[in-house]
Amino acid sequence: MEYLETDHVRPSADGESVIYLDQSLLPGMEEWKKCSEIREMYDAIKRLEVRGAPCIGIFAGYCMAVRAALLAKKEGNAAGLLSELKKEAEYLNSSRPTAVNLSYVIGLMISRAENALAGDGSISPKNLSELLMKEAERVHLEDIDMCAKIAENGLSLIEDGYGILTHCNAGPLATSRLGTALGPILLGKSRGMEFHVYADETRPLLQGARLTSYELSKAGVDVTLICDNMAASIMKQGRIQACFVGCDRVAANGDTANKIGTLGVAVMAKHFGIPFYVLGPKSSIDISCGSGADIVIEERSPEEVKLGYFSKPSAPGSVRCYNPSFDVTDHELITAIITDGGILRPPFHQSIGSLFNE
Amino acid sequence: MEYLETDHVRPSADGESVIYLDQSLLPGMEEWKKCSEIREMYDAIKRLEVRGAPCIGIFAGYCMAVRAALLAKKEGNAAGLLSELKKEAEYLNSSRPTAVNLSYVIGLMISRAENALAGDGSISPKNLSELLMKEAERVHLEDIDMCAKIAENGLSLIEDGYGILTHCNAGPLATSRLGTALGPILLGKSRGMEFHVYADETRPLLQGARLTSYELSKAGVDVTLICDNMAASIMKQGRIQACFVGCDRVAANGDTANKIGTLGVAVMAKHFGIPFYVLGPKSSIDISCGSGADIVIEERSPEEVKLGYFSKPSAPGSVRCYNPSFDVTDHELITAIITDGGILRPPFHQSIGSLFNE
Repeated sequence: MEYLETDHVRPSADGESVIYLDQSLLPGMEEWKKCSEIREMYDAIKRLEVRGAPCIGIFAGYCMAVRAALLAKKEGNAAGLLSELKKEAEYLNSSRPTAVNLSYVIGLMISRAENALAGDGSISPKNLSELLMKEAERVHLEDIDMCAKIAENGLSLIEDGYGILTHCNAGPLATSRLGTALGPILLGKSRGMEFHVYADETRPLLQGARLTSYELSKAGVDVTLICDNMAASIMKQGRIQACFVGCDRVAANGDTANKIGTLGVAVMAKHFGIPFYVLGPKSSIDISCGSGADIVIEERSPEEVKLGYFSKPSAPGSVRCYNPSFDVTDHELITAIITDGGILRPPFHQSIGSLFNE
Repeated sequence: MEYLETDHVRPSADGESVIYLDQSLLPGMEEWKKCSEIREMYDAIKRLEVRGAPCIGIFAGYCMAVRAALLAKKEGNAAGLLSELKKEAEYLNSSRPTAVNLSYVIGLMISRAENALAGDGSISPKNLSELLMKEAERVHLEDIDMCAKIAENGLSLIEDGYGILTHCNAGPLATSRLGTALGPILLGKSRGMEFHVYADETRPLLQGARLTSYELSKAGVDVTLICDNMAASIMKQGRIQACFVGCDRVAANGDTANKIGTLGVAVMAKHFGIPFYVLGPKSSIDISCGSGADIVIEERSPEEVKLGYFSKPSAPGSVRCYNPSFDVTDHELITAIITDGGILRPPFHQSIGSLFNE
């Protein structure tokens, strides 16, 4: 495949290392790194230098392909290569145990190698590693294609000059090229449209400030950073014509789990008569999950609220904090769910059902 | 008057200095300071060591009385004392030019001295300074009384065990003893009631974290600190039975200007069917102001959003920020306005009209 300079995860030209933008240093520093050793790859994920579920998957694919290419130089046969690669795969997979895309893509890569070996026992280590690089590229291209479809679908719902509110980050850094919730904005911008984006900073971890405002301003989009509690005020002032948010998990009835604060944005959007759009891949819809009541919300450390990015604690040590990572937005508050498989409208249990029965 | 140990602004026993809690160091340090020189008094206000409009007023009253007591030792007659005191009053008044309570109380103190002198030209400097201490105490007692009335009125609307959401800070530190929005909670607590308070941290300046959670936990109230964007989630979970917020200015129709984020809380409370109460003195109702549309919203430095309490900027330097200090909550979203003059219910233009025509 052809890579762009902005592809923040990609193989080097010789296929013997993975190049990536260290996201843990953003937005203060843009540092591109290279890794070839499995230990470095493990660390890159562990230290959140590579983050965002789809992005971790793409990275893991290239890591496996690069490791195969390097192992091919030492291993006399493909079976030996696969045996070594499996050990490294297990190690890499342990870098973030709960990251579904990580184990999914690593599994894909190992299956691909096993199938190749089963089909042709005499395949050379070099040919096997080339097959794996193709597989890693396929994973990447699929993500690019998925994002492009979401972006096209989302763009059909907005107009030049719109003010758009975003919450948290579901942009290119977490995925590839266009991202999900930011895709329509970036695609429209590339076609000469101008939007006025207001990015919620998204406490406590500030993904909206650190990543969304960074990505959009780099792309030349007019973006204004606000504190989460300012959203109602700008909606009331008539500055917002649409809200775009990502999703971590969508239930069969359309209830959507996403970064904490999303529910509040949806409630305010409804009050002020502003369309509220959820954007994400079809794969984030979990039809085995009936409604938002079935989604367990992870609680994170209270220190993220009280200290986190602050220079000193904001409250006395004795004060308790509550720090849910996500909330669930009721389907009644959602105008449409924009996926790579189409735009889903209420009643969602029907539109989601149809999408999965196609 | 009798002072409590918790009175964070009060005169020393000899009446020759003002004792105050340095609020600029909270919540990390509790440092009590003493000032006798006018320059120290000016600095205490200027450096926000003494803050909160009513609290600044109370402080200014005692400052004038203490200065009069010290000047009385040097000045041979009351006219000379008053002449000196007027110069110092002008200087103190310039410490925060937009603080209405500051100039109001300084004006009161000077008038009181002028009237005393006009009534009895031979009044001794010592007697004049004693009169002024009485006047400063009266200002303080009036504030205590106002807060107590608001607290009683507010307490009549909540029940033991309630979950209560607060935004920003309208507590004892900004006023005296009970505060306004926190008054019902503190009064109920003193009578053995237990509430579960969720304090919005209130970005960007974190008054909810730094002051509200500090004040409530010191008073033994069960308080949990949350990020502003978590309010919808806890409302949805059924943890909140009432919202209590302060007010900077209330228009004749009930529209209320208060700290940024208040509007969002009100919208969410309405969505989830939770009563939303505004608490403040009758004096914060401005009947010359027809509606919220007439209230000008101050914008503050974008650096407060991007840097403020963070250890490093949260977004690239090129990203614009929007930082309105206040928003206006439409009267339709307000369940009741709780004042020292009674509980005002919709339609507010009528209930407010009646209060001012009594």
